[in-house]
Amino acid sequence: MFVVMKTDCKEEELSAVLGRIKEAGLRGYLSRGAERTVVGVVGVDPVLPDLREMLELMPGVEEVVPITKPYKLSGREFQPKNTVVKVGEVTIGGDELVVMAGPCAAETEEQVMSTARAVKLAGANILRGGAFKPSTSPYHFRGLGEEGLKLLAQAKQETGLPLVTEVLAPQDVELVVRYADILQVGARNMQNFILLDEVGRAGKPVLLKRGMSATIQEWLLAAEYVLAQGNRQVILCERGIRTFETYTRNTMDISAIPIIHRLSHLPVIADPSHGTGKWYLVAPLALAAVAAGADGLMIEVHPTPDYALKDGAQSLTFEHFEQLMGKVAPVAIAIGRRIASIRAVAPPADSTIT
Amino acid sequence: MFVVMKTDCKEEELSAVLGRIKEAGLRGYLSRGAERTVVGVVGVDPVLPDLREMLELMPGVEEVVPITKPYKLSGREFQPKNTVVKVGEVTIGGDELVVMAGPCAAETEEQVMSTARAVKLAGANILRGGAFKPSTSPYHFRGLGEEGLKLLAQAKQETGLPLVTEVLAPQDVELVVRYADILQVGARNMQNFILLDEVGRAGKPVLLKRGMSATIQEWLLAAEYVLAQGNRQVILCERGIRTFETYTRNTMDISAIPIIHRLSHLPVIADPSHGTGKWYLVAPLALAAVAAGADGLMIEVHPTPDYALKDGAQSLTFEHFEQLMGKVAPVAIAIGRRIASIRAVAPPADSTIT
Amino acid sequence: MFVVMKTDCKEEELSAVLGRIKEAGLRGYLSRGAERTVVGVVGVDPVLPDLREMLELMPGVEEVVPITKPYKLSGREFQPKNTVVKVGEVTIGGDELVVMAGPCAAETEEQVMSTARAVKLAGANILRGGAFKPSTSPYHFRGLGEEGLKLLAQAKQETGLPLVTEVLAPQDVELVVRYADILQVGARNMQNFILLDEVGRAGKPVLLKRGMSATIQEWLLAAEYVLAQGNRQVILCERGIRTFETYTRNTMDISAIPIIHRLSHLPVIADPSHGTGKWYLVAPLALAAVAAGADGLMIEVHPTPDYALKDGAQSLTFEHFEQLMGKVAPVAIAIGRRIASIRAVAPPADSTIT
Amino acid sequence: MFVVMKTDCKEEELSAVLGRIKEAGLRGYLSRGAERTVVGVVGVDPVLPDLREMLELMPGVEEVVPITKPYKLSGREFQPKNTVVKVGEVTIGGDELVVMAGPCAAETEEQVMSTARAVKLAGANILRGGAFKPSTSPYHFRGLGEEGLKLLAQAKQETGLPLVTEVLAPQDVELVVRYADILQVGARNMQNFILLDEVGRAGKPVLLKRGMSATIQEWLLAAEYVLAQGNRQVILCERGIRTFETYTRNTMDISAIPIIHRLSHLPVIADPSHGTGKWYLVAPLALAAVAAGADGLMIEVHPTPDYALKDGAQSLTFEHFEQLMGKVAPVAIAIGRRIASIRAVAPPADSTIT
Repeated sequence: MFVVMKTDCKEEELSAVLGRIKEAGLRGYLSRGAERTVVGVVGVDPVLPDLREMLELMPGVEEVVPITKPYKLSGREFQPKNTVVKVGEVTIGGDELVVMAGPCAAETEEQVMSTARAVKLAGANILRGGAFKPSTSPYHFRGLGEEGLKLLAQAKQETGLPLVTEVLAPQDVELVVRYADILQVGARNMQNFILLDEVGRAGKPVLLKRGMSATIQEWLLAAEYVLAQGNRQVILCERGIRTFETYTRNTMDISAIPIIHRLSHLPVIADPSHGTGKWYLVAPLALAAVAAGADGLMIEVHPTPDYALKDGAQSLTFEHFEQLMGKVAPVAIAIGRRIASIRAVAPPADSTIT
Repeated sequence: MFVVMKTDCKEEELSAVLGRIKEAGLRGYLSRGAERTVVGVVGVDPVLPDLREMLELMPGVEEVVPITKPYKLSGREFQPKNTVVKVGEVTIGGDELVVMAGPCAAETEEQVMSTARAVKLAGANILRGGAFKPSTSPYHFRGLGEEGLKLLAQAKQETGLPLVTEVLAPQDVELVVRYADILQVGARNMQNFILLDEVGRAGKPVLLKRGMSATIQEWLLAAEYVLAQGNRQVILCERGIRTFETYTRNTMDISAIPIIHRLSHLPVIADPSHGTGKWYLVAPLALAAVAAGADGLMIEVHPTPDYALKDGAQSLTFEHFEQLMGKVAPVAIAIGRRIASIRAVAPPADSTIT
Repeated sequence: MFVVMKTDCKEEELSAVLGRIKEAGLRGYLSRGAERTVVGVVGVDPVLPDLREMLELMPGVEEVVPITKPYKLSGREFQPKNTVVKVGEVTIGGDELVVMAGPCAAETEEQVMSTARAVKLAGANILRGGAFKPSTSPYHFRGLGEEGLKLLAQAKQETGLPLVTEVLAPQDVELVVRYADILQVGARNMQNFILLDEVGRAGKPVLLKRGMSATIQEWLLAAEYVLAQGNRQVILCERGIRTFETYTRNTMDISAIPIIHRLSHLPVIADPSHGTGKWYLVAPLALAAVAAGADGLMIEVHPTPDYALKDGAQSLTFEHFEQLMGKVAPVAIAIGRRIASIRAVAPPADSTIT
Repeated sequence: MFVVMKTDCKEEELSAVLGRIKEAGLRGYLSRGAERTVVGVVGVDPVLPDLREMLELMPGVEEVVPITKPYKLSGREFQPKNTVVKVGEVTIGGDELVVMAGPCAAETEEQVMSTARAVKLAGANILRGGAFKPSTSPYHFRGLGEEGLKLLAQAKQETGLPLVTEVLAPQDVELVVRYADILQVGARNMQNFILLDEVGRAGKPVLLKRGMSATIQEWLLAAEYVLAQGNRQVILCERGIRTFETYTRNTMDISAIPIIHRLSHLPVIADPSHGTGKWYLVAPLALAAVAAGADGLMIEVHPTPDYALKDGAQSLTFEHFEQLMGKVAPVAIAIGRRIASIRAVAPPADSTIT
């Protein structure tokens, strides 16, 4: 951390800053330039809560510039090697792409079972589906609760696909953990810190969606909450951010994928269903995410999207999902990855300049 | 709701749309124009969950256009008269401005008591202060918990000021409600629907902050969650939204104040401390909010902001807070309002053109 | 267009609305529902400037809802078949991907010539390079002007690559058109309507970058300016939009690519150099854009990026560019496209489910 | 500027960085901490174009942190005293508020003359009105051109109000300068650097609107273009920024007003007409801007907004404008300012605590 002093700062102001740094148990090194005097701060890391803000308020201080990243356990500097999360026989963050697919919400036995069978047949390796649903309006469908979890468990048992499902409240973690293989924390709860603490203690992998206006740094800090509870099995999920563009429900930030891979060892997948909000954009954005290096996809599928109780507009039919899987495989291969459930083919060997 | 058909839609597509509307228990009226055929949908309100999305997916449909607002209880159409929330002798949403002031977080007895005394002396009518604090990083201060609530209760007792304090988790509502006069739901929890249900049932007024990327409509729908539980004592609080501008912590959306007054009967106050993140911007933005019609202010005050454990950069000293109150009073009077605790003065009577 | 009346609108207000519509030479059809009375407006398209706004101001009117898109010539409804722009032997918008590469700005003969040779060798089909550069600060490099155009022309002559270069001001169009094969309009000028008129009249293909806060609709309306001058050779270029995320210079909106393909017949390419602002993000985002269906790429390349006078941080070295081309080819093939200058290879034929 | 080295940087990488800094004619000071080695860069200011980016690309470099602001002439450090722009007898940036009012666009003699008379009567001190109008669609009204300038000149002559009017293109500056007292550069042209150069040379005051996605720093850098041409008469105008909120046309960033006053000596006014896009929000936002310290207002007024060719939805009627002026005056007085044309009244003297 550097404390940049004002051009006209007084000696006593400088002394006060140095005193405050010492008070905080740190050391300050003075560097007097032609333009500016700057104090470098050295010591424990991470620094005291809000010391930065305190220093910024002191007379004579122009600016305080942090140079260390605020997250630790989720950073590549802490762990250079990729985290690979294992769920049954599926690995997330390794060479193989993972595809999580299923209905937005569990509605009926028929809907859940048929969808689970269809996505398995098409090559998905994990079943997604919600029993507790966040809804912008109190008058809309909020999920079947434990009833829904039971339907999803039945589908999991029949297909053998592990289950990822959302938990909305700290008090529900105990219940959901009995059914789920991966606990999902939704975008609206990315900074629900009490919930993060709780899923951190649950001993199951956690899929953490990016908040709709969360910076990448805030997202990693949210992951840090889970990691700090001793749970190292965290999967990040880019699902679009809120921008001024209204054509799409959200704007998928595809660049977040390679950025996460650079800053962190955690796997990152993409959810083009929520990321776009329109079924006809799901395939191109899914391919884009895979090409950019995503470790997997999360896709909403419904037998009859125009009758879905939730998010029908962004759900694929069984047929569209199958087509998507057929398109994903060659792109995965083109960048040197593959989908576990789809037979490996050799990448094109002769792409040479003529 | 209107269903706009594509220019080249087929008769059977049109029939299917009419059929689906009938299936949903509604009536569809056909209107064939030169350019477009449009189906007007008439019936119960609010419409079935996601019927809009379902119709949008049907072949031949170009667009579905809603014409009724999705919120009901929070709307002016439902209740034309302003809601006035009463907390002890303080009213929020009436002619008088309310000023909620105090520390961001309760830290020590000395800090809480001295701040409570100072803000009361300067004219605040409600004490604010946090015992449960959301923190972006797990390594930062997260509040004193019940210990903090006790300190705040002590300050409330001595000064007679009612207390507004944040509740973070559904399971804490029962505890917090024993100390607080107003339950605050923070920006990060605006769409924590389980928490909204819970505070809706708690029987105390609720202060609902706007989420950092929430539209005004989403904010009113969040209020609708509380109202739908039978709790009509909701106060909205604009605290800045996230934009591309990085100079401020958030961008205060002052226009939200008159918009809320137009769309809703609920009172709306402004929090320029979080809205700007910089203490020297608090006063001008507080004055702006009052001039735009805010029903009150929420201001962070600290005896020594540069030693605050939380949000020091945006806290006012006692002296700055007193100066602010001195500036707010004449602006309030200029627009025909006043601060309860500050003696009324006549508005300037002779502002005439020369 | 629909005019939705207020629930409590009076008969004379309704008559006034119908009168105004008639005045404007259009017809209004009345539809009285249980909840609302609505007036459908039928007639010429596009409607009178701002008639929508006028109607919205009339007493008794709740809302005016447009149902036709404001652009015409750039829309798929106007021209269902893809526009294919031809520049020498290169086609843009057909089956083959186009790769435009070169320096951000022309600096020296050595730099321009070596870069042109390197990008050609690696498979680029069009040379990019700026002689007139927009610069946020007046104290930074603003380009070599005609001197730069001459260097670029020399490189074009030697390599045979067509040249795309930016024009900043209407009065420079005449000069730039003598050197360029494609006139580039930059993001900051997307709504410089006088410049759009001028390049529309210049008789050369136009590459129109998306403005940094332009919606897709505004972008198509900007293209409409060029098309309305009789110039149908417009190429769109997604280059990132401004959001709250600060890690990247801009947030690339990859979804804009399939959306443009849906709404418009115009080709769309992607510029991951400006879209990310960081060289190490260029390759993953280039691959993502290709996978999402982009008709081409625009990439900044520099012999020694760390000595570049402009945008060095986002420029690739010759080596990195060559590596990128090697990665793009298989992804292009995987989605059924190819790069003209790179020998076609068969797509993987046996991607089947096991 | 500081160059922060990576934790594992090598000695030769450090030497290379020091070498590069020396090459650029600057001096680098080494500071080795426990965590990090940092190089402070000292020398001329502003630094070489893009040296920051160059250094960021060097091996071993983690980050480069600038500590001086990129603008100079527009900064308070360069000129501590407020710039006061004089236009005839009106001063902008002094104690008195300036009110610029008039039609969005000149349409007819009758419209221009009646509006000019009405706004003068209500207390405006400057006439606004456009003859060259930017329009999102090529099919909408783009202004009357010189014809419009003549109408505005006639109104100026009769009322004695100075005229502010927009110039869209560099080649029009010569024409517009013959009619205008203040040249307006619109939001879409804030980074039209060629136009900024040109108005900088025109010898008339310039009103520079903030771009719709411009940071405050970019806005000051745009002003720097004008100042760098020797023209010190620059007035800034906040007119709303683009955010995710769709209820308003833009989100007015009221905090920009006190921030500009802190960072710069230039006057700043507010345009709540474009800032909100809705006439019924103009008054509350105008009051907010004045309360926050704006040096003036720019307001669109039209005799019959529902017949306006441009921006009717945000225009005030004569009556509403007069009412607005009646509300602005007491707020101005409450914060110690006044409107030149409105008789001064004493501020309320007895706002004391009871």
